[in-house]
Amino acid sequence: MIDAIWPRHAERLPDGGLRLGGCDARSLAAQYGTPLFVVDELDVRSRAAEYKAAYDHGDHPFEVFYASKAFLTVAIARWVHGAGLGIDVATGGELAVALRAGIPGEQIVMHGNNKSRAEIEAALEHGLRALVCDSLDELARIGSIAAERGLVAPVMLRLTAGVEAHTHEAIATAHEDQKFGLSIATGMAAKAVDQALGDPHIDLRGFHSHIGSQIFDADGFEIAAHRVALFMADMARTRGYVADALDLGGGMGIPYVDGDDPLDVAEMAHRLRAIVVRECSSAGIAVPRLSVEPGRAIVGSSTVTLYEVGVVKQVQVSDDFVRQYVAVDGGMSDNIRTALYNADYTAALANRVSHATAVPSRVVGKHCESGDIVVNNLQLPTDVRAGDLLAVATTGAYCWSMASNYNNLPRPAVIAVRDGASRVLIRRETAEDLLARDQDA
Amino acid sequence: MIDAIWPRHAERLPDGGLRLGGCDARSLAAQYGTPLFVVDELDVRSRAAEYKAAYDHGDHPFEVFYASKAFLTVAIARWVHGAGLGIDVATGGELAVALRAGIPGEQIVMHGNNKSRAEIEAALEHGLRALVCDSLDELARIGSIAAERGLVAPVMLRLTAGVEAHTHEAIATAHEDQKFGLSIATGMAAKAVDQALGDPHIDLRGFHSHIGSQIFDADGFEIAAHRVALFMADMARTRGYVADALDLGGGMGIPYVDGDDPLDVAEMAHRLRAIVVRECSSAGIAVPRLSVEPGRAIVGSSTVTLYEVGVVKQVQVSDDFVRQYVAVDGGMSDNIRTALYNADYTAALANRVSHATAVPSRVVGKHCESGDIVVNNLQLPTDVRAGDLLAVATTGAYCWSMASNYNNLPRPAVIAVRDGASRVLIRRETAEDLLARDQDA
Repeated sequence: MIDAIWPRHAERLPDGGLRLGGCDARSLAAQYGTPLFVVDELDVRSRAAEYKAAYDHGDHPFEVFYASKAFLTVAIARWVHGAGLGIDVATGGELAVALRAGIPGEQIVMHGNNKSRAEIEAALEHGLRALVCDSLDELARIGSIAAERGLVAPVMLRLTAGVEAHTHEAIATAHEDQKFGLSIATGMAAKAVDQALGDPHIDLRGFHSHIGSQIFDADGFEIAAHRVALFMADMARTRGYVADALDLGGGMGIPYVDGDDPLDVAEMAHRLRAIVVRECSSAGIAVPRLSVEPGRAIVGSSTVTLYEVGVVKQVQVSDDFVRQYVAVDGGMSDNIRTALYNADYTAALANRVSHATAVPSRVVGKHCESGDIVVNNLQLPTDVRAGDLLAVATTGAYCWSMASNYNNLPRPAVIAVRDGASRVLIRRETAEDLLARDQDA
Repeated sequence: MIDAIWPRHAERLPDGGLRLGGCDARSLAAQYGTPLFVVDELDVRSRAAEYKAAYDHGDHPFEVFYASKAFLTVAIARWVHGAGLGIDVATGGELAVALRAGIPGEQIVMHGNNKSRAEIEAALEHGLRALVCDSLDELARIGSIAAERGLVAPVMLRLTAGVEAHTHEAIATAHEDQKFGLSIATGMAAKAVDQALGDPHIDLRGFHSHIGSQIFDADGFEIAAHRVALFMADMARTRGYVADALDLGGGMGIPYVDGDDPLDVAEMAHRLRAIVVRECSSAGIAVPRLSVEPGRAIVGSSTVTLYEVGVVKQVQVSDDFVRQYVAVDGGMSDNIRTALYNADYTAALANRVSHATAVPSRVVGKHCESGDIVVNNLQLPTDVRAGDLLAVATTGAYCWSMASNYNNLPRPAVIAVRDGASRVLIRRETAEDLLARDQDA
């Protein structure tokens, strides 16, 4: 399919079928059941490689760390690492997967606003590149755990620059009322620098700034980079501290529906580099080692969720408006983003051609909750019916990773497709799995 | 503790500790780890018994079915059944737990807007009281599956009466733009009655009407009952169909924060009975067999989540406002309700007395997401610090049941406390559990 929304190796067959990574979606559904997460392996690998190529070259290369919270399995970690990316993890659980995938600690960064002792110890033990820290409390804790072990902990401080960016708008007011970050404006960031520099068990590597998610242009990064560069210049002047590293975070957006039009990867990389070079130059500091942390941009578009249609219902909403409700065999347990963020999605029939009129429709799940919506607003033909296969695009990021067992539904399988072959990455949960931890079962 | 928000067998100790079901929260945290769901067994049993007592007596008794989606383990199913309640399930997974708990099919009702063939078959096989159905599509499917097996399926039709109720307000406009229900106003409900009456494999038992959640008074039920009674009278007059059963659904609210003041159980039962009797009488029909389906009202207040405090941070939000951010060792993976519904909660220190000033605070989790908030707005003392034990009240409903592994965090254990003893209902997930289905691990 030519659409930027669908995976790269998706194609529409003449009979209306959908081929993913060379595999017919109908066969995949028959073999593995539905709902089913189908990951286009070469889509993930190629996007990771594109990020590597676009960012990591020239005079001021950016390292690229994959933000694993978006979608993490051992195989996915291997794929992105195979393309030359490092990985960022936010918990010990994510670190365990990255290590299981064979990624060296030196290529792993640990995030998290509230790391446990075990997580900090694991980060030190495995020689992680850095712990990203955003509180005086945790900075002290990291220093003290490192001291116990006679180590020096590599730390980056996460700053809030008063910028929040989403899709088309960057809000450059003081968005400081959040759990993340050390505010430059209020002096917390400077205080943290002082504490870090005064702690012999902390090696302050530099700074981190993350401004939002689903960002379509570079404006927000520009404002943030400007403020961070001034802060770095201030630290150099007043403390003699020259930061070695600067991470601009992630949040690079992807298209979910028609009309979504993010900057392409190379153009965004070009602009970010130009912004950083310019801002460092005007602040009178050297350009530090750079990095970014895309998550959604690597995996989001790679994955399609296949559902089987069950109940279809025409609901007369008002005198002159009927909405077609199409219920599928999953829902908010495998995709909470629609309910949680009011997210938009694109979906299409994947098993046949329909010549029926397309009408305003809503794809809903099978959960006992009226907010259980998968695709809020789309056009589907009037002859959609039980047994049809529905493909929802762009479900790679934050769908499987946030999946639940609400209503005691087993979580779907995750499979990879490539060159006409398919294999299971995560096997489907079973009824037995759901009862396995119940001590009275 | 005297507060209606906390479990019935919670008490504050002189040294600031919190005793739950006779067990010191500090000992529970030490023994089982945190985060930890602590269920006051006798709270659940006594609330179930109160519903039974308040509803199931006199000339027009209501049967009470526990809406298991709120919180379901085998033990909880046994407790509510032991108090004389039936159970409502929405999926085969929930049915499996109810059956494992030994509840006879005759006391189980199956909901769900999109039941699978396997779920319909299981409902018939186990002789469930009724399948609640809200589409012509599924009605036909149920009839056809029953026909294959030479059975007659007991069915209730779920109606939408154009009423939506939440907390203090009932909106009696045409709220029909949702996946649930058969609209009375548009004629869909009558159409479904005709289809059901014409299908020899459907035994139409009656009607179901559910108007919302967290309902604090009877007004919304009154409007709905009025419309449903008129509909039933219409069906009797025009089709000669006299409904045997009427279920008013659930949604009975509970207090989460100070000032929440729902009707007490007996008073709500009294009003619902009076409403139904009056509306049936003015519509000129006999009062059918009645039932209700409380979920949250049975389990919501029974449970406290214990967290360990990690990072504490004073965030200068504006020139004259500082918010204290208190990060705990769980978050949106064990309680998505705050992010999903903007829900409010009450929390308190559970390990010591603090004489420090209480200041505006926010309890946040450890997930890599700024919306990861557990308690949005509360007062906590300025000396809250790492290692403190924080108890969040009223986490019985829709917390564990909607829990995820976001950021690869293992889900907490669920324990029951009673008379000074504790035991595990659901064991804590382990790092191994998280990797168990990953085929590359």
